[in-house]
Amino acid sequence: MTPMALEGIRVLDFSHLLQGPFATQLMADMGADVIKIERPGKGDLFRSLTFRNKWVGGDQSPNFLAWNRNKRSMALNLKSAEAREVIMKMAETADVVIQNFRPGVMAKMGLGYEDFKKVNPRIVYCSGSGYGVDGPYQTRPGQDMLVQGLTGVMAATGQADQPPTPVGAGFSDQIGAMNMIYGIMTALLWRERSGEGQEVSVNLLAGMLAHQNQEMVTAMNFGEDFERPSSGIGHPGMDAPFGTYPTRDGWITIAMSPFATLIDVLDAPELKVYDDPKTLYDKRDEIWRELARRTGEWHRDTLLEALLAADIWCGEVKTHLEAAEDPQVAHLGLIQSYQHPTAGEVKVVGPAVGMSATPPKISRPAPLVGEHTREVLREAGYDAETIERWLKDGTAGEPENK
Amino acid sequence: MTPMALEGIRVLDFSHLLQGPFATQLMADMGADVIKIERPGKGDLFRSLTFRNKWVGGDQSPNFLAWNRNKRSMALNLKSAEAREVIMKMAETADVVIQNFRPGVMAKMGLGYEDFKKVNPRIVYCSGSGYGVDGPYQTRPGQDMLVQGLTGVMAATGQADQPPTPVGAGFSDQIGAMNMIYGIMTALLWRERSGEGQEVSVNLLAGMLAHQNQEMVTAMNFGEDFERPSSGIGHPGMDAPFGTYPTRDGWITIAMSPFATLIDVLDAPELKVYDDPKTLYDKRDEIWRELARRTGEWHRDTLLEALLAADIWCGEVKTHLEAAEDPQVAHLGLIQSYQHPTAGEVKVVGPAVGMSATPPKISRPAPLVGEHTREVLREAGYDAETIERWLKDGTAGEPENK
Repeated sequence: MTPMALEGIRVLDFSHLLQGPFATQLMADMGADVIKIERPGKGDLFRSLTFRNKWVGGDQSPNFLAWNRNKRSMALNLKSAEAREVIMKMAETADVVIQNFRPGVMAKMGLGYEDFKKVNPRIVYCSGSGYGVDGPYQTRPGQDMLVQGLTGVMAATGQADQPPTPVGAGFSDQIGAMNMIYGIMTALLWRERSGEGQEVSVNLLAGMLAHQNQEMVTAMNFGEDFERPSSGIGHPGMDAPFGTYPTRDGWITIAMSPFATLIDVLDAPELKVYDDPKTLYDKRDEIWRELARRTGEWHRDTLLEALLAADIWCGEVKTHLEAAEDPQVAHLGLIQSYQHPTAGEVKVVGPAVGMSATPPKISRPAPLVGEHTREVLREAGYDAETIERWLKDGTAGEPENK
Repeated sequence: MTPMALEGIRVLDFSHLLQGPFATQLMADMGADVIKIERPGKGDLFRSLTFRNKWVGGDQSPNFLAWNRNKRSMALNLKSAEAREVIMKMAETADVVIQNFRPGVMAKMGLGYEDFKKVNPRIVYCSGSGYGVDGPYQTRPGQDMLVQGLTGVMAATGQADQPPTPVGAGFSDQIGAMNMIYGIMTALLWRERSGEGQEVSVNLLAGMLAHQNQEMVTAMNFGEDFERPSSGIGHPGMDAPFGTYPTRDGWITIAMSPFATLIDVLDAPELKVYDDPKTLYDKRDEIWRELARRTGEWHRDTLLEALLAADIWCGEVKTHLEAAEDPQVAHLGLIQSYQHPTAGEVKVVGPAVGMSATPPKISRPAPLVGEHTREVLREAGYDAETIERWLKDGTAGEPENK
């Protein structure tokens, strides 16, 4: 059987919403044993949030289904002393603890890094927060879009005469998830060499600034902010033609490309007057309008074919459903599915990273709240009687229809 | 001295532009010895690209300065047989090779995974591409914004009556960089346990879809695409009030928050009629305009204070320069600088992830092309005479003023 890279790595996952769960799903895709520890009943808050008030199979949140495959769920009441003992017993042999409660919440429950370190100094403990654990924003809510707002990306997206524009996807959280992976995997590697665990701290604010380092280096070293264009130019620091352009039947993108070649394909020699670096930046909106008037006369596929033949960097603008039907996406086998106990067949995007010796894969659907409570407690050495008692007195939980 | 987690890990870095260089900078920040292998003279293409035709210190690209600190640069002519021998000699003791040339280019130069595997089966070889190595898009240019266009994020960003909107930062590339880290670190950890290296394959298309999994799960399982709002609502799947709102002196964000509480703070009981889940989605643009009219009467700081006191999730919309001056950013010490040999003091965003035992840090500026050619060749065991010969015959290169 093909091995999984993270087989044998056990993660105690106290995280919820997007940042932590996405990070642990990435580990689970590589074979880690991720035990999601949720409150009995409602579980992870993302189970109760959806888009447009719609639920997959009538009762499942697409958000939750997206970020929790390949995990087992154990429902525990974290305020119970017995539940805490279970966790600490499991921590003796666990490798990673991950959590994204507001700062201080875990420590107050006796589940801070120092608590875990005492029972297992090899533990890697990763905390995710909005803004770090202290400082002027300590009590502020830390959420994806709020961090987009604070870090310049919103002010740099969209058009000059429109409101600052949030990205239509949770990129602060997604960057946060990847920074968790970066920190945890680095710490695990260090542990192989030193025998020691450590605490990894990730926050959305730092992540979003670090990921805009080229924009930040530009703004800070020239002492000048970017200005949103007033056209389809695609980045506030870029010159024409970089941006989105209309055709008769859909939008296309054109990235950094020689302007002379582009106007040659468009048969627009009269635009040659714009072709110098300063003009291409200073008059970018005017140039965009001139180009858009011409691209708008073409059919999309004909134009793309002509541009690609001239080595212009370009492509279609697709919706999510169109992306799911994209021929290259099909070639890569990216759209996969899993069987969910209540929602039926759920279509998802499969693992994005290829590994020649230890390929990631989807082995389990996202779990129901407490679906594996009994199984995990048994593995931890508890007898049937104790487990039944905990399920009855609310220390632990399992799905209602089980 | 505080240890660095990746000390002793050596990376041969053939990558350019953003995706690969950001990944190796993240490793270098953790102490890896990253040797950037560039063409003599011009080096990494990002050295020649900037925003608005401006250069830090008169001659350095902010893009290059942003993603290449903590590395050494060796300039080598990859088409020379002798240079290839140098590389293979260094590969014997290297841990990671990384590259993001178009598919097939490295293999054609005798620098593919199979070539490295022969001299060192423990090598982790990571390739980054736009769309994978084959398939219908094999010959298409793979660039950040083009991939944003293909994967739905552009169609989901901005307003209904405006063009599909690219994100004002290179998120496809940045996600690609993080996927490289995810794959490389996982492979290094697997190598500790198995003794074997492997090939890691990352492409921008897969990354951007995997990072929009919640949007993709929604679209695919309901068979329905998102529709961009025609107001400042912040995500095409979200209901009011989620979005950006004007005040008398700047924009703010308001995320998922109880509508009743919000209108209470705004003293707008007449908006109570909108407060049910279906209406908050169906009439979101109308509700946004009603709310915006009221927020527009407040001063920003007064409004934020009132909203935060009621536990409404909100925050300022800041530009990059304002973000650099943010009190929490200052508290976290995120804005750092390094001394560059020609550009002087360069302000950058420091490492985003905290590690209690092995903190990342900035130890070196971004290098000049070939700044460390002599040093690295000496370490690899070549004598002064050979090095001089190579510098003269163009096999190797170094900065002109050296």
